[in-house]
Amino acid sequence: MKEKHTRLYIPGPTEVKREIIEAMNEWMFGHRSGTMTDLFTTITEDTKNFLGTDNHVIVLSASGTAFMESTVNDLVDKDVLCSTCGSFSTRQAQIAERLGKNVDRLDYEWGKAVKPEDVREALEKKDYDAFTCVMNETSTGIRNPIEEIGDVMKDFPDTMLLVDAISALGGDYIDIDKHGIDVIFTSVQKAFAMPPGLAVCVVNDKAYQRSKEAASGSFYAGLAKNIDYYKKKGQTPSTPAISLMLAYKAQMKRMLEEGHKGRDQRHKDMASYTQKWAKKHFEMFPEEGYWSQTVSTIKNTQGLNIEELRQGINEKYGLLFSNGYGKQLKEKTFRIGHMGQHTLETVKELTDIIEKEAGL
Amino acid sequence: MKEKHTRLYIPGPTEVKREIIEAMNEWMFGHRSGTMTDLFTTITEDTKNFLGTDNHVIVLSASGTAFMESTVNDLVDKDVLCSTCGSFSTRQAQIAERLGKNVDRLDYEWGKAVKPEDVREALEKKDYDAFTCVMNETSTGIRNPIEEIGDVMKDFPDTMLLVDAISALGGDYIDIDKHGIDVIFTSVQKAFAMPPGLAVCVVNDKAYQRSKEAASGSFYAGLAKNIDYYKKKGQTPSTPAISLMLAYKAQMKRMLEEGHKGRDQRHKDMASYTQKWAKKHFEMFPEEGYWSQTVSTIKNTQGLNIEELRQGINEKYGLLFSNGYGKQLKEKTFRIGHMGQHTLETVKELTDIIEKEAGL
Repeated sequence: MKEKHTRLYIPGPTEVKREIIEAMNEWMFGHRSGTMTDLFTTITEDTKNFLGTDNHVIVLSASGTAFMESTVNDLVDKDVLCSTCGSFSTRQAQIAERLGKNVDRLDYEWGKAVKPEDVREALEKKDYDAFTCVMNETSTGIRNPIEEIGDVMKDFPDTMLLVDAISALGGDYIDIDKHGIDVIFTSVQKAFAMPPGLAVCVVNDKAYQRSKEAASGSFYAGLAKNIDYYKKKGQTPSTPAISLMLAYKAQMKRMLEEGHKGRDQRHKDMASYTQKWAKKHFEMFPEEGYWSQTVSTIKNTQGLNIEELRQGINEKYGLLFSNGYGKQLKEKTFRIGHMGQHTLETVKELTDIIEKEAGL
Repeated sequence: MKEKHTRLYIPGPTEVKREIIEAMNEWMFGHRSGTMTDLFTTITEDTKNFLGTDNHVIVLSASGTAFMESTVNDLVDKDVLCSTCGSFSTRQAQIAERLGKNVDRLDYEWGKAVKPEDVREALEKKDYDAFTCVMNETSTGIRNPIEEIGDVMKDFPDTMLLVDAISALGGDYIDIDKHGIDVIFTSVQKAFAMPPGLAVCVVNDKAYQRSKEAASGSFYAGLAKNIDYYKKKGQTPSTPAISLMLAYKAQMKRMLEEGHKGRDQRHKDMASYTQKWAKKHFEMFPEEGYWSQTVSTIKNTQGLNIEELRQGINEKYGLLFSNGYGKQLKEKTFRIGHMGQHTLETVKELTDIIEKEAGL
């Protein structure tokens, strides 16, 4: 591997350390061998320890999108309420519709956060099998108050809370068990800072039981399917991405050393620095009080040519940040991913260069 | 990477060459970058070229099992006929049932092949949205006559032919387009000899259209979902397993050099050698005339302790073959995977050692 490369400040895939990539330099082995059981039980139990949860953990060879699909397929018989506040939460609603479920939407303007009192109001009006909510809307840089939403939902025990935490988990502390979050999932190429291709889903007993008893549901990313196989054999029902799991094991070791709260603090520091910087030169795009801890979406109040700026900085310095998401926000905002293995220093390195190159 | 390692003669994961594993030694890059488009269009188009097909090709970050699920979810509205002749074809029926489809089974005893005339008879009796068939039943070592089944099904144009070719494709020549195979899929850790974590699905226009127009279906492994995104952007809808795709590109280059027919011939030679050897010392387990070209399932007519033998050979020589599949066949049969990058020489190396260690 060359030393020189484009360093990623996009909101995923994030920078992966050289030694984590090199952990994949191992020969293949059988997925029904003791070596596999060792590897898979290690990464599963390490993840439970890192997150501090007593719930079931599934590590699946797929993107987190697979869990956006299988959780609805396994846990929603008929009606699901989907909160939408940006591109990825809208995708969750589309996936549920594609599965043929009855989808009601709790819609928010892009940049606004989901409010616990709105959730309560909607759930009081109609019975739903599940409510879906994104923890961190990568397209707008909103961090939804998942903890308070979880607490509200304790009054609606028949409605499952399904949380897409794809760009948050591992970089933004959450006490999953305390707030009664039935299902929460992520992809590993975000705040976990691993090579993409694996997804993690944390499932409590209530959701596991419903998945087990459901008349229909998913298989490959199915909750009970994967949990039962793990309980019985410590392995995966289908052949997993062995190389990626070797990288996972190596990086999860680093994550355990830093700890869930340690990583949270580092991300807090990076976020608060970036927000201060953004307010000095621009404005923050999302609603105040709900700014993401892992990705800052910044309003292009200076009328900069974002695409030119980011390509120029990439070519000259080898640092890549992100433009706004989708046609609507592409030039109106830009995004700095401060997640995974980034530090205050590496984030400052980028903002200094943006200042210089944009003449701020 | 150490030189010494256990060399795999199990029916997947198969041996992966050192340089293919080392092709993963690259820094991450954005999944919406030009680098990604280059990589993904290269591996997709190379796969079409290798297979000699004009159909759509999807390379997905998942195991082939994901396609066992999404093809049924996208293409079966109500009724599906599943042929079962071993563990993996039975799993296909279970997946369809889990999805809530009406499943009829065309059952065969383990070790027997699916017969085209039986398929005709069943399809004449009832209308089905799809018929599922495994090309190579890894549990029993049966190679089903997919080509003839495809020809029969030309008389039933409303019934899609869905072929699980997980342990065959790339090691057993098939003219997909000529025999009107609507959907055929595989996992890359079998005859493609790549690290596990990716699956390939070949979809003709008829299946693509039905997937596009279906009222409900899959998203992550959805056929139209993936094909449309590729057509529009040359990328994947969700973040893919970048590292594994780098390995894919490197190995597909080797595969193109050898060619579909070249690989077929090498596998033919390995299979026919192994069958001759098996008949000399044991008996073949599956029905004559339908022996797999990639995995030989051999009857333990010598009453050997298979588990002891295979572990002993693994420890002493570092070569690992497989016992029989499932409780039923575990000690009654054993399996030699002669697929992927194996050669006549490496297969002979194993059979010589078995002879010696079993005192044949």
